[in-house]
Amino acid sequence: MEEKKIATQSTKISMSEMVMPNDTNNLNTLFGGKLMYWMDMAAAICAHKHTSNVVVTASVDNITFKAPIHKGDIVTLNAFITRVFNTSMEIFIEVTAQNSNKKEKIESNTAFFTFVALNQKSKPIKVNEIYPENKNDKKLFDGALRRRQLRLILAGKMKPKDANELKSIFN
Amino acid sequence: MEEKKIATQSTKISMSEMVMPNDTNNLNTLFGGKLMYWMDMAAAICAHKHTSNVVVTASVDNITFKAPIHKGDIVTLNAFITRVFNTSMEIFIEVTAQNSNKKEKIESNTAFFTFVALNQKSKPIKVNEIYPENKNDKKLFDGALRRRQLRLILAGKMKPKDANELKSIFN
Amino acid sequence: MEEKKIATQSTKISMSEMVMPNDTNNLNTLFGGKLMYWMDMAAAICAHKHTSNVVVTASVDNITFKAPIHKGDIVTLNAFITRVFNTSMEIFIEVTAQNSNKKEKIESNTAFFTFVALNQKSKPIKVNEIYPENKNDKKLFDGALRRRQLRLILAGKMKPKDANELKSIFN
Amino acid sequence: MEEKKIATQSTKISMSEMVMPNDTNNLNTLFGGKLMYWMDMAAAICAHKHTSNVVVTASVDNITFKAPIHKGDIVTLNAFITRVFNTSMEIFIEVTAQNSNKKEKIESNTAFFTFVALNQKSKPIKVNEIYPENKNDKKLFDGALRRRQLRLILAGKMKPKDANELKSIFN
Amino acid sequence: MEEKKIATQSTKISMSEMVMPNDTNNLNTLFGGKLMYWMDMAAAICAHKHTSNVVVTASVDNITFKAPIHKGDIVTLNAFITRVFNTSMEIFIEVTAQNSNKKEKIESNTAFFTFVALNQKSKPIKVNEIYPENKNDKKLFDGALRRRQLRLILAGKMKPKDANELKSIFN
Amino acid sequence: MEEKKIATQSTKISMSEMVMPNDTNNLNTLFGGKLMYWMDMAAAICAHKHTSNVVVTASVDNITFKAPIHKGDIVTLNAFITRVFNTSMEIFIEVTAQNSNKKEKIESNTAFFTFVALNQKSKPIKVNEIYPENKNDKKLFDGALRRRQLRLILAGKMKPKDANELKSIFN
Repeated sequence: MEEKKIATQSTKISMSEMVMPNDTNNLNTLFGGKLMYWMDMAAAICAHKHTSNVVVTASVDNITFKAPIHKGDIVTLNAFITRVFNTSMEIFIEVTAQNSNKKEKIESNTAFFTFVALNQKSKPIKVNEIYPENKNDKKLFDGALRRRQLRLILAGKMKPKDANELKSIFN
Repeated sequence: MEEKKIATQSTKISMSEMVMPNDTNNLNTLFGGKLMYWMDMAAAICAHKHTSNVVVTASVDNITFKAPIHKGDIVTLNAFITRVFNTSMEIFIEVTAQNSNKKEKIESNTAFFTFVALNQKSKPIKVNEIYPENKNDKKLFDGALRRRQLRLILAGKMKPKDANELKSIFN
Repeated sequence: MEEKKIATQSTKISMSEMVMPNDTNNLNTLFGGKLMYWMDMAAAICAHKHTSNVVVTASVDNITFKAPIHKGDIVTLNAFITRVFNTSMEIFIEVTAQNSNKKEKIESNTAFFTFVALNQKSKPIKVNEIYPENKNDKKLFDGALRRRQLRLILAGKMKPKDANELKSIFN
Repeated sequence: MEEKKIATQSTKISMSEMVMPNDTNNLNTLFGGKLMYWMDMAAAICAHKHTSNVVVTASVDNITFKAPIHKGDIVTLNAFITRVFNTSMEIFIEVTAQNSNKKEKIESNTAFFTFVALNQKSKPIKVNEIYPENKNDKKLFDGALRRRQLRLILAGKMKPKDANELKSIFN
Repeated sequence: MEEKKIATQSTKISMSEMVMPNDTNNLNTLFGGKLMYWMDMAAAICAHKHTSNVVVTASVDNITFKAPIHKGDIVTLNAFITRVFNTSMEIFIEVTAQNSNKKEKIESNTAFFTFVALNQKSKPIKVNEIYPENKNDKKLFDGALRRRQLRLILAGKMKPKDANELKSIFN
Repeated sequence: MEEKKIATQSTKISMSEMVMPNDTNNLNTLFGGKLMYWMDMAAAICAHKHTSNVVVTASVDNITFKAPIHKGDIVTLNAFITRVFNTSMEIFIEVTAQNSNKKEKIESNTAFFTFVALNQKSKPIKVNEIYPENKNDKKLFDGALRRRQLRLILAGKMKPKDANELKSIFN
């Protein structure tokens, strides 16, 4: 397949889920683990659509859970690729929940997942690049490098003192 | 319930799962999202046992997925509390997988989850403290403060320049 | 809540699913019943978002399953409301499947579901109207009356000879 | 396997399910999509038992959902083949629900599914014929032709004006 | 509700399941635990239909698993009450599996479950008696007393030397 | 793989589950069948870890369900091998449940499962022996012979009068 650079927003996918009883704890709010499962699935679908290969999760960045999501709520996950690094993709996921009784209330959550595309022998293969079209996507594209350094440090593959771009934010 | 400080290792729980067909992709390896779901469940069980209250996931730190886990493998998750911060707990999770054909091969993965205990009105309540007994647990206990600063920065609740303990590792 | 007429395309929702082993038969193709379950869920999410009430399936029109969908394929369901009949909504669902190996191949399936909105006493309540913006939505809006007559006949609530609009297509 | 014509009622199978929390909406009544899933599974089991081949859903006729079915209710699905059309079978499904508190209350729902039998190369194969034994089965057998015409029209494979048997019911 | 003695065979229910990938091990045969789950569900449905109360499993007798059941097989479970002991019911379950390729092959398994009916305060309540109509049901009815003694011994509620009926089979 | 006798307690595994809504009946207590499913899974994981082969359930002894387990409770299952009989293993399972509100309350249940290890041709293969280290494990090891006789009688493979060890407990 020949290289064909496409725009960030063309990789966007949407996924909706209804919060079922089995997804909730005894206060009737969604388990964090179930939301992470949906996030990973949304990211996988996004990555899979872009590459047409089997894709596997390489890492997930820190996620902070904000407002609780309730039984019966409809959870919408939007995912798109922010940047491609040769054989890996950083995917941005945005979660919104619509409360079943109060229509106007919208909560939100975001996360960054990194996926790798594999061939049938389970070896990483090159991913088609994407480019940011608008200002916001450009900001995510640029930040991807900094987040990548943080991941490498946290995985013990880079020394903090070598993470030049990341270090700059501490000053 | 009166305060009763207990040792880190007394909070340890173990959970085993067998990797089923529905947990895998087309290369027959475990979905990252499913492993995160199990990690969160193990952490929730650990936190729940310690507090006897409903517990919810507040955040999960960066997770890097190393070796693939295969269909039929047995995944064992060990979880224990590393440190209590008033109403929240940091929980360390260690994942090992035993390949169904090659007995000796053991892969591993680790993660830190933060949980909050809630009362019946969904308000955070104080969690009984724990103390580290051995050298390794002491190291995890001490590092908890640094990881907490990183979480606060990533959640936008602390400025990088104020994260004194964290900054030190970049020099 | 005051009446506020909104456009057909504003009610549109999207849902993506990956075909798992448990969703398939021994030829590794998706069960019809699982696809119907997803269709109903997509329609329910669409209807629920529009009304902010509990919604229940009143009927589903004839569905013909065309091309088989395979294990690992990504199924995308788009649903929107075509017409509101006082307390009921007709919802159009379009299904496309992306084969995991052959990126270009897109199969498709469509269906019409009818949903009713209920209050907390399980009584039907009025649904906000929608209007068609473009030519295609106008065609679906107009056809809704004919399909409604066919449903009433098939449910034994209308005599074929009284279905004036429907009869016309047989001549 | 040699041809052996068997009676309609010999193809009958029965399936019982208990309505679980995850099968219900916020009014504690069964999702239409879950009932359709069970109907398709009952029809598939019936078709599979008759042919000993992999069977796939070709189409489902209009279904109208009557009375709501509640959490904890026991749903019984009876399915049998009404008529064989070379490589396809029309299957009639009758659903009854027993309310867990009021023993006497029995609700009901019916549907027609069409299945096709496939060989290991996914090609349709001939299905053994069945014959109606009693008056009711004879009526279903005769009506199968009319329903088949309606399906072909709705799938766009027949023009309404050519559906002679179906047209007659409008006069 | 007044007492109304009904015949054993009138309590019979049937349940069919298709063996899915997630129900099987790496040799593609059904997990014993999944079959036990289905057996318990069939017995619960049978007991529930007879009493119209919530029913809970009190005990299950020794089960020996004979022939393996394969992926894609259709498993049929027939269950009926053999005898009522005031607030408890002994239920006989017979399992047959039809291999998806070889139509004629029928394997079988049997088990005895004991259920108790509970009122809304979770207290055991009296169950309507049943009577055996035919020779086989009479044999099961008589044997129920002996099996009950064995259960009481195994649960530590009866001393072996007091189990007169059971002792007789050892001589 | 060479024979290497290991101690009973080295085969021990632990599994924790949280009781979800779908695992419960209308009194919010755990289904017996679900607990049996978890018991079988815990036993399978234990047997699988010991042999590194596919293992299948050969039989389960009588189980008596004592105290009800509630929604939200954490169920812990500990399993270890009590004795090896050439190609089969007897596994002891102990279940404890921690009530989510009353920390101190611990209920318990026990069971014996027998598993067989199979090679890739589904033929039974020899299992490495285990030996009891402490008094309690020795007692379980000795009792295994008696329980095995009872199983053989109940499966119709041994005549009661030949079960010498078992007979002795009736006098």
